[in-house]
Amino acid sequence: MQTVKDVGERGLIKLLRRYCSDRVGDDAALMGAMPPGYELVVTTDVLVNGIHFSETTTSAEDVGWRAAAVNLSDLAAMGATPWGVTIALGLTAATSIDWVERVYGGFTDCLQKYQTELVGGDTVRSPVITLSVTAFGQVQSNRAILRSNAQVGDAILITGAHGLSRAGLEILLHPEKANSLSAEQIAKLHRAHQRPQPRLDVPELIWQHSDRAAGMDSSDGLADAIVQICEASGVSARLDWQAIPIPTEIELVAGSKAKAIDWLLYGGEDFELVLCMPRSAAIALTQKLEEAAIIGEIVAGDINQDLDLSQSFQHF
Amino acid sequence: MQTVKDVGERGLIKLLRRYCSDRVGDDAALMGAMPPGYELVVTTDVLVNGIHFSETTTSAEDVGWRAAAVNLSDLAAMGATPWGVTIALGLTAATSIDWVERVYGGFTDCLQKYQTELVGGDTVRSPVITLSVTAFGQVQSNRAILRSNAQVGDAILITGAHGLSRAGLEILLHPEKANSLSAEQIAKLHRAHQRPQPRLDVPELIWQHSDRAAGMDSSDGLADAIVQICEASGVSARLDWQAIPIPTEIELVAGSKAKAIDWLLYGGEDFELVLCMPRSAAIALTQKLEEAAIIGEIVAGDINQDLDLSQSFQHF
Repeated sequence: MQTVKDVGERGLIKLLRRYCSDRVGDDAALMGAMPPGYELVVTTDVLVNGIHFSETTTSAEDVGWRAAAVNLSDLAAMGATPWGVTIALGLTAATSIDWVERVYGGFTDCLQKYQTELVGGDTVRSPVITLSVTAFGQVQSNRAILRSNAQVGDAILITGAHGLSRAGLEILLHPEKANSLSAEQIAKLHRAHQRPQPRLDVPELIWQHSDRAAGMDSSDGLADAIVQICEASGVSARLDWQAIPIPTEIELVAGSKAKAIDWLLYGGEDFELVLCMPRSAAIALTQKLEEAAIIGEIVAGDINQDLDLSQSFQHF
Repeated sequence: MQTVKDVGERGLIKLLRRYCSDRVGDDAALMGAMPPGYELVVTTDVLVNGIHFSETTTSAEDVGWRAAAVNLSDLAAMGATPWGVTIALGLTAATSIDWVERVYGGFTDCLQKYQTELVGGDTVRSPVITLSVTAFGQVQSNRAILRSNAQVGDAILITGAHGLSRAGLEILLHPEKANSLSAEQIAKLHRAHQRPQPRLDVPELIWQHSDRAAGMDSSDGLADAIVQICEASGVSARLDWQAIPIPTEIELVAGSKAKAIDWLLYGGEDFELVLCMPRSAAIALTQKLEEAAIIGEIVAGDINQDLDLSQSFQHF
């Protein structure tokens, strides 16, 4: 098995060039002009082996997919369309070339699905495998989705179910917990965890119904997203707990409703969007998105002082 | 001494926000529009503790400065003006908060000097300290400096002396080797190694004299830059060895002319630009840059087959 040490930095860079856009090859990538009326959006995220993924339990392709998806989700959360992505890889001398190529395969699969490309990178020796990804995109002026844009009276909308990724992790770690699930349900949970889909389809649908939206993605959990949006907007939230969907699969894996709700609120990594916009627009949008739901309303107040809400979070 | 573990990820992010642009705070940074007639340029570089710097021998401020400068140099090498920078930090639980803040201090000092700002980041736990930086900038259309643009007959120009960074490292590791140097010479070498200056001043000067330039920075060494440019342009080079300046300080520290030349050609990390352009423009440019020199000419041929040149590299 060939390793990074065998091939050397130069050899590796040559090998990985095959996965890159033709823009690569200079000190920096030349990306061309931006269309008039658009703004640049930039985001960066790092995955560390043993912390954000495990080389031993996550397939190389999934590590790559995930590294791309996490960053594209941040662009989706801003309402932006991806333009290009860079990846900086820290690799140990013993990392196998086959593993690296499979990571790049999964990474570029995800980029291709969302019509964007790998435009630059760096490869360095490191005692731990690290993937640092920066994604940049374009958003039409005044069409950026910001956390700070929520207004009292807005409906709070989620673009899909939460808790699926956490349940997927559980059955990957403990396959016996999937005993009561159908093959289809198992595949759904695996996919939620291993192949998260950034919601780049959502922003254009929003603007068909609304001139304004606040929001972010739910990568750090649904509860966190609601708190962050409210903090940034200086408002609070009233949640309609009955309206938050608890997928059957999650309850079956969790073994109790309380645990299912915990995963749903705090599990994270679902990469859905949590959006705030006028109710009529939110209703129209949920009708276009299969698993979307309106789960509450923005109200006046300070979310961190809002005992009702924090107790609700605890007792829901 | 407070550590990353004491403060936690959230606490650390809050602390580091002080160093960031107001654009930070959403899932991604909203950078605004690009002026018409400009193109986006993107580059990324990683520094790993123990490989690209040593936490024990490099001051935190210098680590930060260097991480910024390396990336800004890549923009300069493309002829671009910096627009913004992101940093993704991998930190061990035991990393001191003071060290992290000093890194950010050095990092933003460098950004400020070159009128750019920190627009995003990510902070993760890692078994080894890692800094992944992505810089993006703007370049006027048709004013990008590419490696592949060199033409037969072009003069090869360096914007400053080479080997200084390598000599600086030497006297930092072995202070006794600086015994025959003046305080001013020592400071110059230290500065070359610890506070490299990206040549963002150069591109606008080029266009006062030329409509075309090829080039790259010399971060991986002067010899490497010449080879890379020739490879990308499908040409070879004839070097005027007498014209390559060997600073006195380097020879004094190296102890022999042969070693000084080795550092000059292969030492790397000088972050000057190596440029190819019509001779008349090159002459005009060298007159505007204090330590610039024309060191050769682009000739027809294949640099990797060019035995004269490779022997010259060895016997110079």
